[in-house]
Amino acid sequence: MSDPLEQVFTAVDELSSTFIVNLAAAVAIPSVSADPEHRKDVFAMGKWLAEQMKAIGCIVESRKNPLGKQEGTEMELPDILLGHYGTDPAKKTVLVYGHYDVQPAQKEDGWAAEPFTLTEDKSTGRLFGRGSTDDKGPVLGWLHAIQAFQKAKVDFPVNLKMCFEGMEEYGSEGLEELVKQEAKRYFADCDVVCISDNYWLGETKPCLTYGLRGVQYFNIVVAGPQTDLHSGVYGGTVHEPMTDLVGILASLVASNGKILIPGIYDQVSKLTAEEQKLYENIDFTLEEFQKSIGHNVNIKDNIADTLMSRWRFPSLSLHGIEGAFSQSGAKTVIPGKVQGKFSIRTVPDMTAEEVSKCVKTHIEQVFNTSGSKNRLSIEELHAGAYWYSSPNHPNFQAAAAATKRVYGVEPDFTREGGSIPITTVLAEIGNVCLLPMGSGNDNAHGPAESIPKRNYIEGTKLLGAYLYELSRTDLNV
Amino acid sequence: MSDPLEQVFTAVDELSSTFIVNLAAAVAIPSVSADPEHRKDVFAMGKWLAEQMKAIGCIVESRKNPLGKQEGTEMELPDILLGHYGTDPAKKTVLVYGHYDVQPAQKEDGWAAEPFTLTEDKSTGRLFGRGSTDDKGPVLGWLHAIQAFQKAKVDFPVNLKMCFEGMEEYGSEGLEELVKQEAKRYFADCDVVCISDNYWLGETKPCLTYGLRGVQYFNIVVAGPQTDLHSGVYGGTVHEPMTDLVGILASLVASNGKILIPGIYDQVSKLTAEEQKLYENIDFTLEEFQKSIGHNVNIKDNIADTLMSRWRFPSLSLHGIEGAFSQSGAKTVIPGKVQGKFSIRTVPDMTAEEVSKCVKTHIEQVFNTSGSKNRLSIEELHAGAYWYSSPNHPNFQAAAAATKRVYGVEPDFTREGGSIPITTVLAEIGNVCLLPMGSGNDNAHGPAESIPKRNYIEGTKLLGAYLYELSRTDLNV
Repeated sequence: MSDPLEQVFTAVDELSSTFIVNLAAAVAIPSVSADPEHRKDVFAMGKWLAEQMKAIGCIVESRKNPLGKQEGTEMELPDILLGHYGTDPAKKTVLVYGHYDVQPAQKEDGWAAEPFTLTEDKSTGRLFGRGSTDDKGPVLGWLHAIQAFQKAKVDFPVNLKMCFEGMEEYGSEGLEELVKQEAKRYFADCDVVCISDNYWLGETKPCLTYGLRGVQYFNIVVAGPQTDLHSGVYGGTVHEPMTDLVGILASLVASNGKILIPGIYDQVSKLTAEEQKLYENIDFTLEEFQKSIGHNVNIKDNIADTLMSRWRFPSLSLHGIEGAFSQSGAKTVIPGKVQGKFSIRTVPDMTAEEVSKCVKTHIEQVFNTSGSKNRLSIEELHAGAYWYSSPNHPNFQAAAAATKRVYGVEPDFTREGGSIPITTVLAEIGNVCLLPMGSGNDNAHGPAESIPKRNYIEGTKLLGAYLYELSRTDLNV
Repeated sequence: MSDPLEQVFTAVDELSSTFIVNLAAAVAIPSVSADPEHRKDVFAMGKWLAEQMKAIGCIVESRKNPLGKQEGTEMELPDILLGHYGTDPAKKTVLVYGHYDVQPAQKEDGWAAEPFTLTEDKSTGRLFGRGSTDDKGPVLGWLHAIQAFQKAKVDFPVNLKMCFEGMEEYGSEGLEELVKQEAKRYFADCDVVCISDNYWLGETKPCLTYGLRGVQYFNIVVAGPQTDLHSGVYGGTVHEPMTDLVGILASLVASNGKILIPGIYDQVSKLTAEEQKLYENIDFTLEEFQKSIGHNVNIKDNIADTLMSRWRFPSLSLHGIEGAFSQSGAKTVIPGKVQGKFSIRTVPDMTAEEVSKCVKTHIEQVFNTSGSKNRLSIEELHAGAYWYSSPNHPNFQAAAAATKRVYGVEPDFTREGGSIPITTVLAEIGNVCLLPMGSGNDNAHGPAESIPKRNYIEGTKLLGAYLYELSRTDLNV
């Protein structure tokens, strides 16, 4: 008897046209969570997905969103689908997460065809349609993996628990609450977690993602005169809040990206030789990076340093100023009160408390030495923790083995610079591996979203292979 | 026979109730130049004013605005009224300027009564109504001065030329063009110019204004990535335009108002002991100043230094940033292109060319040393020259003598921090004196605009006395 995984792969290939038909049916439901007009479609999509799950033997609970109505509206939040397939106590239990809602899309934004009609482009080998790669393709991938095991008559290697939400593109409202409620109940027996909702770096090389940066968002408020003043009448006579604020903002970060706040880098974990090597072998070029930013304004002159700056070092960005003149043209105002917004992307082993302390101490020191008589306050608008999992964890070893089986190459081990808040929540349940299906050029939130047909079909094999490899992996190393 | 000026003053007192009736009629025409709905009222006001002028014997030309239609609209710009009274070659010729349009006003903005109904408040002695002090009261003051000389049967002491426009509150569109056209024709024989369109510093002490600061407005453009980027994905890897811009803005001015651009102060005329004395005797207190800014954020701890900072030294104000996040809330954007707006208030003997040169040299130097790969450009959006006239000019001596006659005190000699662009244009015709009628608390552009009844009636005497004193002054000293 041949390798059971080869039989599953053969089944995927045989079923591939069905899988594309299923994706077309999913894309055809415009489940745009941000648009009240489409809320009914989000519910319809949840219902359709639950039926697909049941049809292949999953047990599905459509949980009412714990927050009930969407904040500030009379709209019901969509259900969160909890499903499971298999309850064999001898098998490991894997939790997978995905979302069935999508970003808005209108043809005139730059789509060649209707965004909610799945359209294959033979010349590029891509399947175009909103949700094709984010995240309907990967969500269906998990179900199709089950179908392929069934068709190949290969014993399903794990117990699969599924958590699919319908508000991801609008802040995942209610999901954290539900996960926390169920962490010790529904999710209590999950050994590891897998999320397929991100992308390869480029077009050709598969990757596994083991880290995300966190974020702490600050607002500096400088208040001076009671109201805005005329700069002709008052310029030179009053401490201007804009002058103070700009002085503070300029003290935070240098043009080369170096954070100038004392103490920030002291908290950053040291780069090891082993980790350094991960970056040097990653399949991504400076040219690809420059293309993605549309200009040659990269700070580092090689891709390894660029990726480290993006993933494993903190950064500080100045986002803007509230309360000052921001229109086009020329207005001679002295703003009476201004607010400067900036955020710091955080990495291991920074702590939110220490970052806040360093930020506040530094800003107060800069302001106090300015001699200004204005009033300063510093607010922290939100904070989200970074997430980091060792790429040597057995969960990643299983995913890497699966990648090698399907694509014939070792995956790149990558991190991402942004945060996916649900990851840190799910990390409370078990080790999380981010296992992307789509490619780096899928334009997930933009016009003409697509997924390469290869990524969709081979990606389905990848998800199945991951579950198979995981079942053979010792989690206790 | 008694002092002829006393006879004129008596006539003003006898006519005072008529003068208030006239002001009420003028206020009742809502000649709001900024509001298309009221454009017909601006025309109506011009017609009414021309009739008033003709009724007392002026020869009036209603000149079509040289710009024709208002830019970007199909609306005709209001006429500019040119009038003259007297053509005696033995007399001096005085040009007076005023405007018959007003700022917008709505009762709900904070008016106790209807803004376009002149309302006397006996408790404060003030006449409330839009345009009462800015500038219908002063414009009528000139006409009423003529009437008072007529009633007193005192020979009118000068030839009076008048220039009254209807677009002052909306940029004086077309006025400069007309004045330049007529400088060598209609205005060619004018010896001096008087403008009554500003205010005393406070409530009690009359003043004459001999200087205005100029303004040069700059826009610094820093462009980097092709579009806005996500700060999670790109933070730390690209030169961020906001970081560069904020670094430049912070290098321009200190919290204590000191301009940090090398070369700016080298051009500022030195303070003489005589000039210093002018500031020390001015009737204005630090408490009044703090009240006007609504807080104690004054830079200087005495009023003389405060007034010098406001009037005779340059200042630099940062107005705001275009292209960055400026709303409330928290957005994690890296703006791809940002524009920083600032302006410098200029004073004697700065030149626009030298200021531009210093600004550009400094900014380029700061940017070049930052090591940024972004693109910088510096635009000068507009420039208006400062205006300065010696307070010892005979035109001011006449105005000072008139003030002493009417109010019994020497006026303060003041400057203003803002610019009144038409002043520099009229200064081409002859020495300009700014001779205010209203008080510092008239709230000219705000709700509940008013003029003290005393200022309106004694101010009419002041304008008449000025013309009388001027006729007896040797202009060739």
